[in-house]
Amino acid sequence: MYHHVKQMMYTVQVGTADPRFGNMLLEQFGGANGELAAAMQYSIQGFNCEDPGCKDLLIDIGTEELSHLEIVGALIRMHLQPMKNDRAAAEADPLVAIAGGGGVSLVNSVGDAWTSDYLKITGDLAVDLRSNIAAEARAKIVYERLISFTDDAGSKQALQFLMTREITHMRAFTAALESMEKPPFSIGIIQPTPGLVDQYFNASTNGKDTSKKEEKDAPWNHGSGLQLVQSQITGGEGLDVTPYDPEPGTEVTSSKDSSPVGENTGKSKPKAVPSKKLKAS
Amino acid sequence: MYHHVKQMMYTVQVGTADPRFGNMLLEQFGGANGELAAAMQYSIQGFNCEDPGCKDLLIDIGTEELSHLEIVGALIRMHLQPMKNDRAAAEADPLVAIAGGGGVSLVNSVGDAWTSDYLKITGDLAVDLRSNIAAEARAKIVYERLISFTDDAGSKQALQFLMTREITHMRAFTAALESMEKPPFSIGIIQPTPGLVDQYFNASTNGKDTSKKEEKDAPWNHGSGLQLVQSQITGGEGLDVTPYDPEPGTEVTSSKDSSPVGENTGKSKPKAVPSKKLKAS
Amino acid sequence: MYHHVKQMMYTVQVGTADPRFGNMLLEQFGGANGELAAAMQYSIQGFNCEDPGCKDLLIDIGTEELSHLEIVGALIRMHLQPMKNDRAAAEADPLVAIAGGGGVSLVNSVGDAWTSDYLKITGDLAVDLRSNIAAEARAKIVYERLISFTDDAGSKQALQFLMTREITHMRAFTAALESMEKPPFSIGIIQPTPGLVDQYFNASTNGKDTSKKEEKDAPWNHGSGLQLVQSQITGGEGLDVTPYDPEPGTEVTSSKDSSPVGENTGKSKPKAVPSKKLKAS
Amino acid sequence: MYHHVKQMMYTVQVGTADPRFGNMLLEQFGGANGELAAAMQYSIQGFNCEDPGCKDLLIDIGTEELSHLEIVGALIRMHLQPMKNDRAAAEADPLVAIAGGGGVSLVNSVGDAWTSDYLKITGDLAVDLRSNIAAEARAKIVYERLISFTDDAGSKQALQFLMTREITHMRAFTAALESMEKPPFSIGIIQPTPGLVDQYFNASTNGKDTSKKEEKDAPWNHGSGLQLVQSQITGGEGLDVTPYDPEPGTEVTSSKDSSPVGENTGKSKPKAVPSKKLKAS
Amino acid sequence: MYHHVKQMMYTVQVGTADPRFGNMLLEQFGGANGELAAAMQYSIQGFNCEDPGCKDLLIDIGTEELSHLEIVGALIRMHLQPMKNDRAAAEADPLVAIAGGGGVSLVNSVGDAWTSDYLKITGDLAVDLRSNIAAEARAKIVYERLISFTDDAGSKQALQFLMTREITHMRAFTAALESMEKPPFSIGIIQPTPGLVDQYFNASTNGKDTSKKEEKDAPWNHGSGLQLVQSQITGGEGLDVTPYDPEPGTEVTSSKDSSPVGENTGKSKPKAVPSKKLKAS
Amino acid sequence: MYHHVKQMMYTVQVGTADPRFGNMLLEQFGGANGELAAAMQYSIQGFNCEDPGCKDLLIDIGTEELSHLEIVGALIRMHLQPMKNDRAAAEADPLVAIAGGGGVSLVNSVGDAWTSDYLKITGDLAVDLRSNIAAEARAKIVYERLISFTDDAGSKQALQFLMTREITHMRAFTAALESMEKPPFSIGIIQPTPGLVDQYFNASTNGKDTSKKEEKDAPWNHGSGLQLVQSQITGGEGLDVTPYDPEPGTEVTSSKDSSPVGENTGKSKPKAVPSKKLKAS
Repeated sequence: MYHHVKQMMYTVQVGTADPRFGNMLLEQFGGANGELAAAMQYSIQGFNCEDPGCKDLLIDIGTEELSHLEIVGALIRMHLQPMKNDRAAAEADPLVAIAGGGGVSLVNSVGDAWTSDYLKITGDLAVDLRSNIAAEARAKIVYERLISFTDDAGSKQALQFLMTREITHMRAFTAALESMEKPPFSIGIIQPTPGLVDQYFNASTNGKDTSKKEEKDAPWNHGSGLQLVQSQITGGEGLDVTPYDPEPGTEVTSSKDSSPVGENTGKSKPKAVPSKKLKAS
Repeated sequence: MYHHVKQMMYTVQVGTADPRFGNMLLEQFGGANGELAAAMQYSIQGFNCEDPGCKDLLIDIGTEELSHLEIVGALIRMHLQPMKNDRAAAEADPLVAIAGGGGVSLVNSVGDAWTSDYLKITGDLAVDLRSNIAAEARAKIVYERLISFTDDAGSKQALQFLMTREITHMRAFTAALESMEKPPFSIGIIQPTPGLVDQYFNASTNGKDTSKKEEKDAPWNHGSGLQLVQSQITGGEGLDVTPYDPEPGTEVTSSKDSSPVGENTGKSKPKAVPSKKLKAS
Repeated sequence: MYHHVKQMMYTVQVGTADPRFGNMLLEQFGGANGELAAAMQYSIQGFNCEDPGCKDLLIDIGTEELSHLEIVGALIRMHLQPMKNDRAAAEADPLVAIAGGGGVSLVNSVGDAWTSDYLKITGDLAVDLRSNIAAEARAKIVYERLISFTDDAGSKQALQFLMTREITHMRAFTAALESMEKPPFSIGIIQPTPGLVDQYFNASTNGKDTSKKEEKDAPWNHGSGLQLVQSQITGGEGLDVTPYDPEPGTEVTSSKDSSPVGENTGKSKPKAVPSKKLKAS
Repeated sequence: MYHHVKQMMYTVQVGTADPRFGNMLLEQFGGANGELAAAMQYSIQGFNCEDPGCKDLLIDIGTEELSHLEIVGALIRMHLQPMKNDRAAAEADPLVAIAGGGGVSLVNSVGDAWTSDYLKITGDLAVDLRSNIAAEARAKIVYERLISFTDDAGSKQALQFLMTREITHMRAFTAALESMEKPPFSIGIIQPTPGLVDQYFNASTNGKDTSKKEEKDAPWNHGSGLQLVQSQITGGEGLDVTPYDPEPGTEVTSSKDSSPVGENTGKSKPKAVPSKKLKAS
Repeated sequence: MYHHVKQMMYTVQVGTADPRFGNMLLEQFGGANGELAAAMQYSIQGFNCEDPGCKDLLIDIGTEELSHLEIVGALIRMHLQPMKNDRAAAEADPLVAIAGGGGVSLVNSVGDAWTSDYLKITGDLAVDLRSNIAAEARAKIVYERLISFTDDAGSKQALQFLMTREITHMRAFTAALESMEKPPFSIGIIQPTPGLVDQYFNASTNGKDTSKKEEKDAPWNHGSGLQLVQSQITGGEGLDVTPYDPEPGTEVTSSKDSSPVGENTGKSKPKAVPSKKLKAS
Repeated sequence: MYHHVKQMMYTVQVGTADPRFGNMLLEQFGGANGELAAAMQYSIQGFNCEDPGCKDLLIDIGTEELSHLEIVGALIRMHLQPMKNDRAAAEADPLVAIAGGGGVSLVNSVGDAWTSDYLKITGDLAVDLRSNIAAEARAKIVYERLISFTDDAGSKQALQFLMTREITHMRAFTAALESMEKPPFSIGIIQPTPGLVDQYFNASTNGKDTSKKEEKDAPWNHGSGLQLVQSQITGGEGLDVTPYDPEPGTEVTSSKDSSPVGENTGKSKPKAVPSKKLKAS
């Protein structure tokens, strides 16, 4: 059950209204990496989550993002104010001015309707937490860019508040992922094919010349357990395509993992025995 | 410049055509976490990337995903074959049968048109790599679920091949992120507000009772440098809302970082001096 | 600021899981007339509302709808449960099963992503209240249809609870509209053209025969102050197209009305003098 | 069967072309509350309507809206004319200029493609008429705003003509709803739960303080038969959640009502005996 | 101005209602190649057309397609009828059953909302006519496929009527294109680069082997004035990339051509002197 | 299998960056008629194509369009460069500036996400080739308009290169269609109804006056085998609606034709005996 408190989590102050900046701010109201997207992604993951602790985490942060939606909405409304009686201001966002009466709507800075296609919800906790870490990183960089495009002190401070919270959330989701104690690249219950999983495929080359340093001596094809494989078109052998049967139950799982999907899956699911603590996500 | 080689990266074999499974497989052709989404996300990030090594990485993997699109397309076409002359099979996906003639199209398993709203492209390398790590995790779990819903050996093996490659890519993107040598939560060029960034806000409670263990003793609110803050509605003090001015140039950056966005940003951008190697993303 | 209470507003019980019914129920989770649509329409109207009382009303109901989203989400999850390990159940909604792991997502019964195109937010209170009355009527009829397609007692009772609330909200929005004390068809600040506004145009006829009773003796063209006008193609005179200049400030307004939009509008806005109480919306 | 007459319903005249105003006008051509939306909503409701009189009404107005689409299209084309040979004008709407050659297209003022997600069609006449009343109110306010953003007399007069027709249609739909002679809040065939239907839930408060006048003495929670209920989080008892079984056939219906949906619905549907005339919609 | 005649252009008869076939038929109501798409594409092209004759053609056919929308809507409604009181039938299209009450809506067979993204409207007559020829070909093949998936004689005959009209329209659009008397590949006012325009680029090969017959002896790379060019990756010289300045006014135009777009375009537009009659589109 | 060569097909040079022109250019990157749309339409048609020669053609051109996507992306990036540190430039496309960091994304000039609804893929070769001919004509006219809106020589030359290739492709697709040697209006396997197929319906008139020259003496209703039929509302007889049963196998087919769709279709499919060479598409 939800409750709304008539007190803003952060009180917004704007010196000079700037309708074109108000238009830009809509990115964080109804945009792809905005507050509604965050609120819905985490809250609905929370509805689906089977682990009580992580469910609480997801709904805590999902609910806080609703409070942020209210803050950024208030900030935008102040900047859009001149649209009500100034044609030039209205041109900054004709959709908002004409159809929306100068108020906020669930659209982004170019008037695209908000869509749940923005959300990443798989119902697998270890996967969803990675999606959330990335989502917070995106929201952080967007707030930073907005800060750089205004000179209004009150707006900058409000955005700094919101931007900071994204880093807090990024840390919380990372802590939750680490608390699952799964090996770094363990996803689901079927292990990838040995050998093939170590092959880095060089699909972009300088024609037939594959000798450049960046092509053969990067951390992602040299070290990290990955090996460079050249494509057939450049005279290489290509990837190892030996057929390999999937083996459910071979991946290391955690007690917090979501129950896997599929009638044939995990029949012989072993007891989760993580060999070591998670080091990197 | 692109070239197509008339040889599949992996040769697909199907024992028995299963139109409803073919319909499900469309998730990985024209779906949110499918091969076109991966191909486009990485390739276009690569077009935008300013670091030559990471540009190569992004286009290598983006191009490989195009080859995967071809593979999964071939697999789907075999499973959809009966739609051409069987009404019951056509009911498995009327859009594909009637409008598409039983061939593949860029839609998902419920016929939604593919949209670039699925993509996460911010133009900031350290952020985009995190989005890619999450994207690969999602693709892996989707392939695993598809494996579990078929008994056809050839289909399972093809999906195991594709699933394995996602883990390879996840490792490569992680290696690239680590190669940037940035601290774990360093995004962009403005540091978050000290103090506030450590406050975990308890926005979901058992009414006014905030004493439950999961509310006050989880890794994300206890340890990890985060502290629990209760909401005003439950008698807490709420977050620290002291105004704080953003300071561009205070975040630790890497030589591989994308150039920041904004006229006021990074004017006093310091030389990147990562104090230590990246430990976790 | 929002808060989540770990107690459902209504506790859901399901006797037998029915995945195809769970799929149908998604209409009220992520569908056009569902709970998120209601929550967002009212809450964002509330953010924009300038009258404190009506702002409270809009946010009260918008917040309650978020609690309903949680209820209907719980109901759906119970019905979708078999999707996790049964291929036939997964066929009831391949998107939910494969991409969503059998959990709820912000999609409707045919997997369309939720979009804010569903919302009607104009920033004019008297208009928005009418949109809300209609929205509640739609939600009521959809719940009624869902009730009729299940035999599960617990599901029926939960839907009856949710359906009832829509009628409560419809009454509250109607009371708010009546409290504005505007004449029945007074919208905004410019009166319609006299004469022309009374002409009902007969654009659909039985060929040139316009003599049928329903064409000339219906409440909407006979009585109610409306008069029937025949089209030129059937030998009529057509509508009165005498040019008429718009006159801002001629419509009767209320103290609760939103401030009007436009630089030339309302310059001579008269004091609101409603001649009589609102009779019908 | 449709016929097009080579005579505009209203002849448009424009003094000075204003491309940015032309861009704004697209809201009423291909926008959410525009003429195509109206034409399609009413016409398709008309195709579905079982009552001959109301079917005629819906198609009369739906067809008139097609004629309005033609008028507003002509108005827009005149304003967009400079886009053909002036770069600055083209910047007013690059999509229209580059992709559309300066002509009209089914997009709104920010280039969003028209979508049937804008439409509200439930197949229940009493519900659809409410949706239409609200739609006309929205279209009226949008025309009024457009009038206020231009100084061109011919454009203003054309918009006044179109705006006036929306009020006419609003009156006609209201007359039709009243002609059904249903009680004010009677929707479908299942009555809401007694008691619960009278409870107004106070989901937004000033923290635990629920004593403010607007919280306890508004027309929607005091009078109108509605009573105020406080939330559990603020110390209230919450809504009455006693299970209640839905009873099809208990709502008062009209002879014009659409046939209800659902296999279990309306088995004991009583003869419609409206006790009194409809007072308010 | 439009008028609706209460007489169907073709009277539909259905023997046995088949809800899943009704669902399939939605492709031609609210689908990408359906009747509304055709009606809107041609009508709006007609609104934009500057040549009176072709304007009449476009609106003639656009209007006829509206009449077809009504026919196919009636056909679908008959097939969907069982959805009203049968759960199994409702499963054939839950969106239509639950949200739409078993009536028609502007969606396709998988419930995607109709969108103007389906339309091809460029404002250039010679281009638009080609888009229309292709659109009619698509509509024809879709009707043919629908015919093949039903055994109901009345449905087949109605679809044969509608299918036939697409061929009529295809012929009319082709006649209009030929009446422009432009050379076969003359589009707009700027000629393509000589030499380069004749080069067919072999971007898909059997690795480095470019000797296969289909690679070097097809009508599109041998004859027709086109010559085969091999890619650099396969040892070829690649396309001729010598810079070439565009020359507006060098393409052969017709008196029926739309006025070109762009401030720098066509300054020296020559008198149209088609050297010969159009042979192929 | 795809390969990327680190060499642009055409090297782009830009004199002066012009962010608003960069914004316009997005039409050809992520717009409806842009390079990704072309690449995907042809490549996926190629995946579905059963004729080896035409499959090669479709993938040749589809792959070349991917190379064009890279070229136009590079051109756009140069023009967008000022967005990174100039607020006025950022206003040219706030979505690209704020969310995309000034890089390219799969959106059009007004920020609409790319969608596969732009694509026309029916799985019928003779139909798809017509869609491709029209698509190339559209892309040509869009490039021409872009050329006319810039004065930068390097940009003009790059666009001239890309524009030229569209004409080459249009010729290649036309050659392929002609190589099928089907009669001009032969689509699929069911012939249209004789008689009815020759009737041109006059659905738009000057009221009841159908005597104007353009109404009765145009190439599409006079000659070309088509005859003019007047509508009932103007006193005509209307179309011939005599029921006619569809006859699969009566249309002339080609050895290159795709296999037809439908269980009842083509049972008596005759050997393809094209009576004469294709004259027009």
